Amino acid sequence: MSKPKVILAFSGGLDTSFCVKYLADDCGYEVHSALVDTGGFSAEELKDIETKAYGLGVASHVTLDVVEKYYNDCIRYMVYGNVLKNNTYPLSVSAERVFQATAVAEYANKIGAKAIAHGSTGAGNDQVRFDVVFQIMVPDCKVITPIRDMKLSREAEIDYLKAKGVVRDWTKSAYSINKGLWGTSVGGKETLTSYGYLPESAWPTQVTATGEETVKLHFEKGELVGINDETLTPVQAIRKLTEIAAPYGVGRDIHVGDTIIGIKGRVGFEAAAPLLIIKAHHLLEKHTLTKQQLYWKQTLGETYGTMLHEGQFLEPVMRNFETFLADTQSNVSGTVQIHLAPYRYQLLGIESKFDLMSSIFGSYGEMNNTWTGDDVRGFSKIVSNQTMIHRKVTEAGL
Amino acid sequence: MSKPKVILAFSGGLDTSFCVKYLADDCGYEVHSALVDTGGFSAEELKDIETKAYGLGVASHVTLDVVEKYYNDCIRYMVYGNVLKNNTYPLSVSAERVFQATAVAEYANKIGAKAIAHGSTGAGNDQVRFDVVFQIMVPDCKVITPIRDMKLSREAEIDYLKAKGVVRDWTKSAYSINKGLWGTSVGGKETLTSYGYLPESAWPTQVTATGEETVKLHFEKGELVGINDETLTPVQAIRKLTEIAAPYGVGRDIHVGDTIIGIKGRVGFEAAAPLLIIKAHHLLEKHTLTKQQLYWKQTLGETYGTMLHEGQFLEPVMRNFETFLADTQSNVSGTVQIHLAPYRYQLLGIESKFDLMSSIFGSYGEMNNTWTGDDVRGFSKIVSNQTMIHRKVTEAGL
Amino acid sequence: MSKPKVILAFSGGLDTSFCVKYLADDCGYEVHSALVDTGGFSAEELKDIETKAYGLGVASHVTLDVVEKYYNDCIRYMVYGNVLKNNTYPLSVSAERVFQATAVAEYANKIGAKAIAHGSTGAGNDQVRFDVVFQIMVPDCKVITPIRDMKLSREAEIDYLKAKGVVRDWTKSAYSINKGLWGTSVGGKETLTSYGYLPESAWPTQVTATGEETVKLHFEKGELVGINDETLTPVQAIRKLTEIAAPYGVGRDIHVGDTIIGIKGRVGFEAAAPLLIIKAHHLLEKHTLTKQQLYWKQTLGETYGTMLHEGQFLEPVMRNFETFLADTQSNVSGTVQIHLAPYRYQLLGIESKFDLMSSIFGSYGEMNNTWTGDDVRGFSKIVSNQTMIHRKVTEAGL
Amino acid sequence: MSKPKVILAFSGGLDTSFCVKYLADDCGYEVHSALVDTGGFSAEELKDIETKAYGLGVASHVTLDVVEKYYNDCIRYMVYGNVLKNNTYPLSVSAERVFQATAVAEYANKIGAKAIAHGSTGAGNDQVRFDVVFQIMVPDCKVITPIRDMKLSREAEIDYLKAKGVVRDWTKSAYSINKGLWGTSVGGKETLTSYGYLPESAWPTQVTATGEETVKLHFEKGELVGINDETLTPVQAIRKLTEIAAPYGVGRDIHVGDTIIGIKGRVGFEAAAPLLIIKAHHLLEKHTLTKQQLYWKQTLGETYGTMLHEGQFLEPVMRNFETFLADTQSNVSGTVQIHLAPYRYQLLGIESKFDLMSSIFGSYGEMNNTWTGDDVRGFSKIVSNQTMIHRKVTEAGL
Repeated sequence: MSKPKVILAFSGGLDTSFCVKYLADDCGYEVHSALVDTGGFSAEELKDIETKAYGLGVASHVTLDVVEKYYNDCIRYMVYGNVLKNNTYPLSVSAERVFQATAVAEYANKIGAKAIAHGSTGAGNDQVRFDVVFQIMVPDCKVITPIRDMKLSREAEIDYLKAKGVVRDWTKSAYSINKGLWGTSVGGKETLTSYGYLPESAWPTQVTATGEETVKLHFEKGELVGINDETLTPVQAIRKLTEIAAPYGVGRDIHVGDTIIGIKGRVGFEAAAPLLIIKAHHLLEKHTLTKQQLYWKQTLGETYGTMLHEGQFLEPVMRNFETFLADTQSNVSGTVQIHLAPYRYQLLGIESKFDLMSSIFGSYGEMNNTWTGDDVRGFSKIVSNQTMIHRKVTEAGL
Repeated sequence: MSKPKVILAFSGGLDTSFCVKYLADDCGYEVHSALVDTGGFSAEELKDIETKAYGLGVASHVTLDVVEKYYNDCIRYMVYGNVLKNNTYPLSVSAERVFQATAVAEYANKIGAKAIAHGSTGAGNDQVRFDVVFQIMVPDCKVITPIRDMKLSREAEIDYLKAKGVVRDWTKSAYSINKGLWGTSVGGKETLTSYGYLPESAWPTQVTATGEETVKLHFEKGELVGINDETLTPVQAIRKLTEIAAPYGVGRDIHVGDTIIGIKGRVGFEAAAPLLIIKAHHLLEKHTLTKQQLYWKQTLGETYGTMLHEGQFLEPVMRNFETFLADTQSNVSGTVQIHLAPYRYQLLGIESKFDLMSSIFGSYGEMNNTWTGDDVRGFSKIVSNQTMIHRKVTEAGL
Repeated sequence: MSKPKVILAFSGGLDTSFCVKYLADDCGYEVHSALVDTGGFSAEELKDIETKAYGLGVASHVTLDVVEKYYNDCIRYMVYGNVLKNNTYPLSVSAERVFQATAVAEYANKIGAKAIAHGSTGAGNDQVRFDVVFQIMVPDCKVITPIRDMKLSREAEIDYLKAKGVVRDWTKSAYSINKGLWGTSVGGKETLTSYGYLPESAWPTQVTATGEETVKLHFEKGELVGINDETLTPVQAIRKLTEIAAPYGVGRDIHVGDTIIGIKGRVGFEAAAPLLIIKAHHLLEKHTLTKQQLYWKQTLGETYGTMLHEGQFLEPVMRNFETFLADTQSNVSGTVQIHLAPYRYQLLGIESKFDLMSSIFGSYGEMNNTWTGDDVRGFSKIVSNQTMIHRKVTEAGL
Repeated sequence: MSKPKVILAFSGGLDTSFCVKYLADDCGYEVHSALVDTGGFSAEELKDIETKAYGLGVASHVTLDVVEKYYNDCIRYMVYGNVLKNNTYPLSVSAERVFQATAVAEYANKIGAKAIAHGSTGAGNDQVRFDVVFQIMVPDCKVITPIRDMKLSREAEIDYLKAKGVVRDWTKSAYSINKGLWGTSVGGKETLTSYGYLPESAWPTQVTATGEETVKLHFEKGELVGINDETLTPVQAIRKLTEIAAPYGVGRDIHVGDTIIGIKGRVGFEAAAPLLIIKAHHLLEKHTLTKQQLYWKQTLGETYGTMLHEGQFLEPVMRNFETFLADTQSNVSGTVQIHLAPYRYQLLGIESKFDLMSSIFGSYGEMNNTWTGDDVRGFSKIVSNQTMIHRKVTEAGL
């Protein structure tokens, strides 16, 4: 009789390497490994991981490329919603976890797996993001999390693998790095305290740009569709902007936030393109949307980000938020200019045919030809009415 | 019979100089000028304005110092609420207008004035802020706005003054500057377009700092009470931080926003201390407040800022917001370190005895000794429940 | 040379009858009257108003039927959003004013009118609703409001008309009634105080039902599409339900609210069908939508109602709200039963194939076969985490 | 060596009776039972439960009276916030569970208990409410939930008790009733479906009132402090109003809501006093608070209710909400009249010295002596500005 299949979300690191052996030998599964690519791997890296998987004896290994899907189903809406968690963090990791989990769940369904395994520890957000997606999409699949459940030390894992004949250099790097299309996170050492900042050397992209330059971002209905007069797909544009801006060291910061499990957490991130795109997009919106649209977009965009961060991407209201956000973008077209210099950037301004700061009613600095002083006086009187009445009534009532 | 008294909010510029003569000679008032100091004037400047007022023939001139009141009744709450309009602008001008208007209204009451005059034009927010406060506080006072109502050109005003024997150098500077304790605004030329950025020379404080330094901000229940281990009053601390940080050229930007009268507007501002204080305060809160407190503080803080910006400071709900915001600050005490370099700053981290990223439950990076993998698994299952049910029901129902 | 055309929003009452003569004789306009039907007039009443218009000498009179448009463009969304202003009032009058104004503005454009006149007084909301729509849609049309501007007494108007040879019985009824598809308002006497309730005789529909009955409302994607197993269009269904329920005296109340101009106001209303539809629709949603959807629908629905009430129907964000609300309705299908008795009604329950209170996971009262006590225990532990930490840290820090 | 102590939240019913024996005999605890009185028990019932406890052999039994505390720390704020969950349910049970749990936790601390036990099942909200409070207040106490964990049938429990010599009439009533100061819940049979309504006989208070009457509620700063001209403490007033109104059968309904664990639930409730108090209080607020205060109170009040419902009463933000809500009540004083008839009530109106619908500015129906038609015209123009510009710019841009 054949063994039951398990899908393992595999990264090639110590934890998931341990899982391959543990699932096969101790749990009796036929192990199928899967790597979900959300835009952070080179072809070489993907090949290397595949080799490692087969080296550990998996029955099959697959790379699931979800980059375009990730953009279309999520990044797009994060841009529409100007999503920066706690006003800082573009949710680089949070969002891609959901797409990794979704891809794994669909793949599990496809090959008839009875179980899914992931290497999350018990200390962070990722375990919940994986658990939740699996619980919703494949509730009948068993979810196995050896690292979380057994709380093994790295040494114990290394010894276990050694005993199985797997000997590699498992030296842990000082920082844990996670890279995707929408940014790279950097955790470790200083981020485990409340007061330390990451040293220059810890950042994945070193600052090599020395001069200054101005870059033009072209938006069409809220999407980045070109840079410096060159037409690009949004995914190409994100990659291109990363190439241009990351060497300036912009888009770096440390995010301090609430994990889903209630503790505070801190993580460094490097996300030049996401930061510039969101800030530029927001500026374009300040010119093209009404005050009410800006207010409600911010409220819903922030909630969209929080729910995404907390693994609630599949909640039905998220689809309603997306519909709302997309509906607000019809006039968000135009060009934003940004000045780049080492470690900093400055939004310079925008051009848009839908700019509400329009001169068709007269030139700025003197434009009040469509209303009179008396109109404003009347306006002020009426908007003061309730507070004026409240004041008089309160004084009389006391 | 004596003439009726008018209080004129006087700045010493062309518009309000015109008003002195116009109110006295054309309208028959006894003109009393008042300058409200919100922290932007030197003793010398105050003296100079007083001299100008008497030179124009006012019956009396008074300087109303509201700096401490402005801090206590408003700036304090803007810090508690991390108020940055459209995520950018610390409301430098918006807030002080209300305190200027309030001081003038109280003074009008005190000296029994029948009218109040201000020099606002018809194109901006300030006219509404003044109108609204006067309408609420002194509804029986006539409000006179010659510049807005007569739409005079600068040339016409100069000619009028010349005819009255007032000859001065009225050369208009390229940029209109407004300075107060909570920042300086810079408008003109580039800010009248959607795409131009202010040139280096336009900024009131030139960048003279060449090195780098780290500054420590000490907060006690949400208020800045010290810098670099020196205890200060909040007003002193704001002034001190401005001295330290402004020469680095930080806290500059262009705000794009919706005016109260419905048009879009753009204004440059230089607000080194406000920006650093708000960002540092917010970081401290991310460590010391719960997720729910952060969420609701942001919602109410933003509304507080918008209503303040729109001249609704006297609305009763503003007092309720202030009570809420103050009530959230009991644990917001500690020190924030900020690194300063020319044109940029970086928050480094915080120290607080109320830091929720606490190691009393185990050290970060491995801390999950208060819950198990099974706890999180149960949590994930329960939080997925409704979406899982929704998915099954929808599939069955379609 | 021909006279300029004015469109007069004509109701046949004293005020707008006065306007016909005044606009023609004193202002020199060619007066075209228009009555916009939002569902409150019988064919006979429409004919009678037309006769009155021609009797006063209008150049033309037209009835603009906007009932279907009113339903499709607005009532539908008020149902989706469960819009009850201040938790009470279905915005019976507020909404239809916008559609009356819009129809008049379009008609003015069509026949090339230079001016639009309406008979609003200066004390209420309607003047603003009309002004705002005209200002946005036909900003170049002059808007004339003789009643508001001249503040004439009824006697003065009657004398003026008598002098023009118009003699009618202008006896004022004790209550001012406004009827439309979405309800009837009743104002006067008691509603002008804070403590009086309307007497039985003041209600347009008298209570004639003596028994009790149960009515079934059938919804499809949020819209009422049938009653008691009979398929109807939504407009037919609203009319039918009004016939059934109004004689029970349900859906009556007094709304206390904030007018757009800042004063408080009170108005009686009779809106049997709107109340029952909204309450039934909301109940169906409680069964078919997730908690998050319910929360955000309520937030946006309430804002939609407030902006509509305040004449801001044309604000672009309103279209975004509508898109959001419609997007949430895909599963809001099913039947709601309501018990009717004189002066009261009771929602009994619902049936829906999208009911999330579903027995497919086990029967209620014992259903917890998809999770264990330990799952809930884990859930409780994790959701308590932050408060538990906050408590410990605060105790230690003080 | 002495046995460890366990506190059992004891109700005298089958489940907690089973727990007494199980904890003592199978788990080896010294069982101390506690009943927390939130206002739903008569002296006789309390005595009866005590007798039952000792009959089962508890080491001690105590009645913890938290009625005043429950009012002061929670009901008061639910009134200020007009808290009706899903617009319907006054959270009768949800709120008192928290106070029961809190009292038990404090008592456990006091007598040095090592464990706390409660009889919640695994299907509802109460288990979470208890778990959460214990986890936060006494994290070192073991929490034992035999019914939830062992999933015993009633029959098995009865057999177990019989074997222990405990023989009583354990006949289950058709409906499960929970009574407290703030209302009584009724669950069972029909409420386990989506379509059934409770029969007349199921309601704890039968309808015995046959006439009609008008009752006056006197509020002082948001609290009910008298009825029909008699001064009472708030707790007395709630009890008195229950006596008056419950026999009319008002305040009954079925609540449909989301449980904390994600499933939908339905429960009947009878809460005459809570409903009347909240509706009357809300009406008084509509007259005495500004539009902005009403809006924000509703937003925060609703969140307060939801978090309370979900057992999050101890979250620090709840204290901030309470501070906010209390701060809004300074003018909420006056009298509300309500007409009562069998099965229905009608709010008639209010009287308050802080009524903003005040005649000090002129009489209603004609009052517009503080502003002119031109003021409103100016207001309308300015508030239309942005939409008008948006319309023109969009047309030009497309």
